[in-house]
Amino acid sequence: MSPEILILHGPNLNLLGQREPEVYGSLTLDDINERIQDHARERSVQVRIQQSNHEGVLIDALHIARNWAAGVIFNPGAYTHTSIALRDAISAIDLPVVEVHLSNIYAREPFRQHSLTAPACLGQISGFGWRSYTLGLDALLGYLGLLD
Amino acid sequence: MSPEILILHGPNLNLLGQREPEVYGSLTLDDINERIQDHARERSVQVRIQQSNHEGVLIDALHIARNWAAGVIFNPGAYTHTSIALRDAISAIDLPVVEVHLSNIYAREPFRQHSLTAPACLGQISGFGWRSYTLGLDALLGYLGLLD
Amino acid sequence: MSPEILILHGPNLNLLGQREPEVYGSLTLDDINERIQDHARERSVQVRIQQSNHEGVLIDALHIARNWAAGVIFNPGAYTHTSIALRDAISAIDLPVVEVHLSNIYAREPFRQHSLTAPACLGQISGFGWRSYTLGLDALLGYLGLLD
Amino acid sequence: MSPEILILHGPNLNLLGQREPEVYGSLTLDDINERIQDHARERSVQVRIQQSNHEGVLIDALHIARNWAAGVIFNPGAYTHTSIALRDAISAIDLPVVEVHLSNIYAREPFRQHSLTAPACLGQISGFGWRSYTLGLDALLGYLGLLD
Amino acid sequence: MSPEILILHGPNLNLLGQREPEVYGSLTLDDINERIQDHARERSVQVRIQQSNHEGVLIDALHIARNWAAGVIFNPGAYTHTSIALRDAISAIDLPVVEVHLSNIYAREPFRQHSLTAPACLGQISGFGWRSYTLGLDALLGYLGLLD
Amino acid sequence: MSPEILILHGPNLNLLGQREPEVYGSLTLDDINERIQDHARERSVQVRIQQSNHEGVLIDALHIARNWAAGVIFNPGAYTHTSIALRDAISAIDLPVVEVHLSNIYAREPFRQHSLTAPACLGQISGFGWRSYTLGLDALLGYLGLLD
Amino acid sequence: MSPEILILHGPNLNLLGQREPEVYGSLTLDDINERIQDHARERSVQVRIQQSNHEGVLIDALHIARNWAAGVIFNPGAYTHTSIALRDAISAIDLPVVEVHLSNIYAREPFRQHSLTAPACLGQISGFGWRSYTLGLDALLGYLGLLD
Amino acid sequence: MSPEILILHGPNLNLLGQREPEVYGSLTLDDINERIQDHARERSVQVRIQQSNHEGVLIDALHIARNWAAGVIFNPGAYTHTSIALRDAISAIDLPVVEVHLSNIYAREPFRQHSLTAPACLGQISGFGWRSYTLGLDALLGYLGLLD
Amino acid sequence: MSPEILILHGPNLNLLGQREPEVYGSLTLDDINERIQDHARERSVQVRIQQSNHEGVLIDALHIARNWAAGVIFNPGAYTHTSIALRDAISAIDLPVVEVHLSNIYAREPFRQHSLTAPACLGQISGFGWRSYTLGLDALLGYLGLLD
Amino acid sequence: MSPEILILHGPNLNLLGQREPEVYGSLTLDDINERIQDHARERSVQVRIQQSNHEGVLIDALHIARNWAAGVIFNPGAYTHTSIALRDAISAIDLPVVEVHLSNIYAREPFRQHSLTAPACLGQISGFGWRSYTLGLDALLGYLGLLD
Amino acid sequence: MSPEILILHGPNLNLLGQREPEVYGSLTLDDINERIQDHARERSVQVRIQQSNHEGVLIDALHIARNWAAGVIFNPGAYTHTSIALRDAISAIDLPVVEVHLSNIYAREPFRQHSLTAPACLGQISGFGWRSYTLGLDALLGYLGLLD
Amino acid sequence: MSPEILILHGPNLNLLGQREPEVYGSLTLDDINERIQDHARERSVQVRIQQSNHEGVLIDALHIARNWAAGVIFNPGAYTHTSIALRDAISAIDLPVVEVHLSNIYAREPFRQHSLTAPACLGQISGFGWRSYTLGLDALLGYLGLLD
Repeated sequence: MSPEILILHGPNLNLLGQREPEVYGSLTLDDINERIQDHARERSVQVRIQQSNHEGVLIDALHIARNWAAGVIFNPGAYTHTSIALRDAISAIDLPVVEVHLSNIYAREPFRQHSLTAPACLGQISGFGWRSYTLGLDALLGYLGLLD
Repeated sequence: MSPEILILHGPNLNLLGQREPEVYGSLTLDDINERIQDHARERSVQVRIQQSNHEGVLIDALHIARNWAAGVIFNPGAYTHTSIALRDAISAIDLPVVEVHLSNIYAREPFRQHSLTAPACLGQISGFGWRSYTLGLDALLGYLGLLD
Repeated sequence: MSPEILILHGPNLNLLGQREPEVYGSLTLDDINERIQDHARERSVQVRIQQSNHEGVLIDALHIARNWAAGVIFNPGAYTHTSIALRDAISAIDLPVVEVHLSNIYAREPFRQHSLTAPACLGQISGFGWRSYTLGLDALLGYLGLLD
Repeated sequence: MSPEILILHGPNLNLLGQREPEVYGSLTLDDINERIQDHARERSVQVRIQQSNHEGVLIDALHIARNWAAGVIFNPGAYTHTSIALRDAISAIDLPVVEVHLSNIYAREPFRQHSLTAPACLGQISGFGWRSYTLGLDALLGYLGLLD
Repeated sequence: MSPEILILHGPNLNLLGQREPEVYGSLTLDDINERIQDHARERSVQVRIQQSNHEGVLIDALHIARNWAAGVIFNPGAYTHTSIALRDAISAIDLPVVEVHLSNIYAREPFRQHSLTAPACLGQISGFGWRSYTLGLDALLGYLGLLD
Repeated sequence: MSPEILILHGPNLNLLGQREPEVYGSLTLDDINERIQDHARERSVQVRIQQSNHEGVLIDALHIARNWAAGVIFNPGAYTHTSIALRDAISAIDLPVVEVHLSNIYAREPFRQHSLTAPACLGQISGFGWRSYTLGLDALLGYLGLLD
Repeated sequence: MSPEILILHGPNLNLLGQREPEVYGSLTLDDINERIQDHARERSVQVRIQQSNHEGVLIDALHIARNWAAGVIFNPGAYTHTSIALRDAISAIDLPVVEVHLSNIYAREPFRQHSLTAPACLGQISGFGWRSYTLGLDALLGYLGLLD
Repeated sequence: MSPEILILHGPNLNLLGQREPEVYGSLTLDDINERIQDHARERSVQVRIQQSNHEGVLIDALHIARNWAAGVIFNPGAYTHTSIALRDAISAIDLPVVEVHLSNIYAREPFRQHSLTAPACLGQISGFGWRSYTLGLDALLGYLGLLD
Repeated sequence: MSPEILILHGPNLNLLGQREPEVYGSLTLDDINERIQDHARERSVQVRIQQSNHEGVLIDALHIARNWAAGVIFNPGAYTHTSIALRDAISAIDLPVVEVHLSNIYAREPFRQHSLTAPACLGQISGFGWRSYTLGLDALLGYLGLLD
Repeated sequence: MSPEILILHGPNLNLLGQREPEVYGSLTLDDINERIQDHARERSVQVRIQQSNHEGVLIDALHIARNWAAGVIFNPGAYTHTSIALRDAISAIDLPVVEVHLSNIYAREPFRQHSLTAPACLGQISGFGWRSYTLGLDALLGYLGLLD
Repeated sequence: MSPEILILHGPNLNLLGQREPEVYGSLTLDDINERIQDHARERSVQVRIQQSNHEGVLIDALHIARNWAAGVIFNPGAYTHTSIALRDAISAIDLPVVEVHLSNIYAREPFRQHSLTAPACLGQISGFGWRSYTLGLDALLGYLGLLD
Repeated sequence: MSPEILILHGPNLNLLGQREPEVYGSLTLDDINERIQDHARERSVQVRIQQSNHEGVLIDALHIARNWAAGVIFNPGAYTHTSIALRDAISAIDLPVVEVHLSNIYAREPFRQHSLTAPACLGQISGFGWRSYTLGLDALLGYLGLLD
């Protein structure tokens, strides 16, 4: 049976395409989700996609994923830089989590150049637009031994 | 048709009047809302007022305001100093936002003297009690060209 | 009539027993709650227990406690280190709050060694596993003059 | 008899309109003063306006205002960020002082994001161009109980 | 045979009751010691109590306790914030040590908000007046399996 | 004609497999290079691989790549954290550069958690062992429009 | 012939007695000057007294003192903490300068606890009200060998 | 009856005259004590002089002074910069304490430019060699109303 | 007609030759001005020279130069390190300004190693004694296209 | 015989003209070298010019210059901000070295605003494009007494 | 006559062998002293060995050594990082002092990586277990010209 | 067969004897190497000596030493304070490395008081001139069990 992966989008990502397109590109979240779905199909994995602006909802989603997911692709958005609670949630669940960012966080304001959540993740991919997600999916599958 | 403005109150402001009156004054939030309503009526604008202790609910409210509001008066309360996600939400919506504070944040603890949200706002008004809101409304209307 | 106390558990504590047992021990939250209940019965007080991963829900719970509780035992989890909003909520309600931690926060990562919420509390108890809660209950009752 | 208010402009504001118009707008100081005068007339108050590039002259002006003014609207310009002497002058005179800034100081260089003078003031208004002054006048009159 | 516990009081605690009663309460050290003795008798343990203003004497006392004590309740006073030597002494002896403070160290000056000694202790209890000691005794006995 | 890519390995990477295998894995640099070659063949691109422990040689290699390469996959090793000269070299050449790291730099010592070179790169991939290189190759090809 | 000493008062000291009397006492500057004059007469020295709120005027006064004074008693007020130019003026003139403060600068806000000017002075006397000046005069005369 | 004053010398001051005379002068501690005695006789007060290299002994001496002294002249030496315990001892005893230093601490290494003990003292006199003590005595007597 | 240049000397430079000659050399300001005049004559430009110890006077001088000067050679002295107001004045006037220093500011105290004014200048020349001014003149003329 | 001067260019300067022309201008290094040669001929001095991207090669070049050169014009590029080894090399050779920069380092990123190498140099010239080199040559010749 | 050397052991070293053997090794202080004695005999010097947990006693011991010792081997233990008083004592006595540490202080917690005492010593030897003492003895004898 | 040791000298050490003799002594590197050779012969070990100003060459030398050396004596010079790449090289090779310095790095500029390389070494010896090398050799041989 094909493995299932959680794709988790953090705060303000629901506005993609409208929000500061010079930073985040002109694709909407639906456009990106479609590309993730296409890529997942090629890799024969199933993905469930969720977005929330609420830190608590994101924590809950990670907790619940323990019961069904083989791993997580997570874009914590602005919570990357402020949430120890999300970092603890990632450590608490025993799943591999790949942190992804659309933009290159190093090329932005100083307060966006450090990640509180990444130390609890498998690794981080930052700066490649929507491809950060599909590269993250490959990274996760490679780690799980599911990429030939 | 008269413009509509979102008045958004952040965490703990629902306790106004009871909470540390030596810092925040003895008016309740209802008292303040009434004065805002009076002031709005004088200016012939309509206001919708919302309060939440939840960062995510505040982000959602800002997102939704894109569809109906001409601008926002926002008191982010303690989230002023910790929330990059709210700052991003303000940047993401294409509305003028005026940050207001009841107390003079410069005359308080060091961790209250910097604002993470203000750089994404039009400006900030701090220290004039309930009048911070009505001054904020005038500032917003002035910016929108609606103040003669 | 016996006094009522709020026992408030913060983010990720619902995973206790499964989450990093080398740090947090192998008891589940239910196990701990049972011991708190036993201890409360011995002390002839009533406790209501609540857990949430949502900062806003925790703020709401503190606000509501003003109407029924004599005091609060609060483990803010990771929000200890990041939430000024919770600190304000503790100051805003006029109840004695005791901050408790399962692990010794001083023996952990630097970012866990400072508490933003403790200055608004009566005191802090950290490092004694589930007993941090029952010691906290005794501390609170002592403060309320309910411990002989 | 109508109250008198000191409007005090700090260093480099005499060049307004010529100096970096993309930051400070294209109005000259005379244009702004005229609008302040208009606004004061509407509010039935009298204003005396003074500008100086000299920190000592600004201190002297504040001292002298003790003898005639009911309050001060003060834009300390660059001295906002460096002058403890001006802060002391504001504390020393027993008059309400409102700090105003044309531009949003939070949206500028880090060294402009903190104010040494604001803790001694009633409050601060920043980011609304020339309207920062008229909003400041309303804030001051409100505080003095002279705004209906 | 009943276990023996060292109660160790650090610098300036001999002046309790006279020294800044608004911070430390009006009980003298003798009053507090009596309450500790009472509490210990209830718990059927024996305590030896020692106070010194000398960092070296406190280190020696900890070293000697290795030969007779089952654990230590230690209020390092101001040395909490400056003494790596005491921290090393706590690590060097193989005894459980509970750090206690009369006042809530988080609610005081910044330089009192960090503890150099706590990382070497079992845990810390801070803010409950003389009860910090009796709570500390319960915490220690709980850890030693001597509390039913 | 198929595009050519420079794979550039920084200091100490020649010791891979022997050096701290618990951090960097047990593959040698030759093993990794082989996998990169395999992956490149699948993608129908050509790669030239170079390793040096000399900051200057790495700068020269980047300069020369301007004449022949379509892009660069660069693991700057320890120079990531100290070399402004390499950052300048990346900015100076007009080629897309993807920064890669074998280990998750966020999960290591504090001085390894910031990158001086990444702001000049397209993006960064960190924490996936040898796959960081092949993911980086895909990221680069995606950016160049060479990945279907 | 009796030596002449410059007594130099910095910014805001002209308001003494009216300004924050809980910090600076209730004596006016004239009262203090009278006591300095009395003390000087007892010591058979002549003093010239000058006050200015202008940093530049204070620098000029120090420069001019090179031509007539045997030494300086200087209370730089708020310029103590911000003026490198005054420090340079003190170094530039070849006269012994004693820095004095009415209040204990160590017991005030952190930004008042360091002196930029003191390193260029003979020494500093802080915290003894108007006596800081007469003690300073004695210190200066002692240094000049004019105190038996 | 004439008041009694404690003169307390801190660590390494017993070596005066031999220790780094270019910094501390060539007088021995006995020479200085003699001058203090002379000065006290002129002022009709009695002094008791004590020196110790032990922080604990200095704390004890301050505590004991509560029973007999009218005030203290204290040179805490290097403990000035490191001892919160001595600061607490000064606060704990209800006596006026004047901090004195032979050398100008502002003109020395950065770590000697701040005083942990001074905030608890009446004031500080620094930089006048042995006269710092006699000036301190006058300052103390002035404060006690014993100087005409 | 030959261009006119403002030579502006900041605080304490009037004492040159007498002030700390081991740092600033033994030439007086008149000597230096003469050499600048000679150099200007050789270059067929006219210079007007002004010195002031007053920050405000220096700001005024820069403002006025807008009406007659082609550029400015400015030695801000100690204001280099503390004056945002001078930096703003330089930005506000639309003239090229060259910052010069007699001594090498990098080889002095840490607080002299950063310049607040230089970012608003064309460039900075530091460390060549009086030649810093003539080199500065050449730099300015080169920029103005007046140096063949 | 005419003196010989080493012109030493640091990392990435070989790419001048192509590299970020908006920062560094459009001249190539050959263009600049030609202008330096012209200027040197006018001054009747001989220059040898060398460029390297290797920190070690630059150190060697400075060492070797001791045997033949009368002084050095050095643009350390990005090594300005990180290389203690180059600073030591400048100190170690007994030659006057003038540090030059094409761009105004104060007007760039914070990490470019401090120089580790300048304290060991005669002085620094920054911000005048290719003229920084010819001004540097004049500064050096002036220091050597070779400029009339 | 053979020279005499003081071997001075600081706080907690009396517990060696029992205290954290994974950090400090399993030798007792007596074992180490024996090896020092053996080594001293081979070098024909006499050593006197002293240990104390009291900062004051260590200061006294250094002072007394001025009367009889040719030099000191000093392991200040935890006081290395906190005691300016010990640093002053080392500077005050005119004896060469070699600082030694059993463990490599650079490979431990950040607060152990800096030494306050070493700047006053001849040099420091750290990380070689008991051999740090015998290497220190050789270093001292070499300095004294007593090692052939 | 006798063991072989690498003696590795870092940048600028080739200039010893000529370079700042007041800091580094008047011996040349050849003089020092001779003394190391003599000492090695006495200990019956063989040493190979290498010096380079190139960080990369030093990294290569450490890598190559894995194939022939029993250990390394390394003076990283100025790279001590900046090179993470050298630290990684020391960690990567499985050889004991002793870090040595001619001067006492704690008694020099602040930026020389921390070592990035020492945490990866066995230990550090600093401040004993050429003897730092021979002491380092003894420390290394002691560690290897080759010193009786």
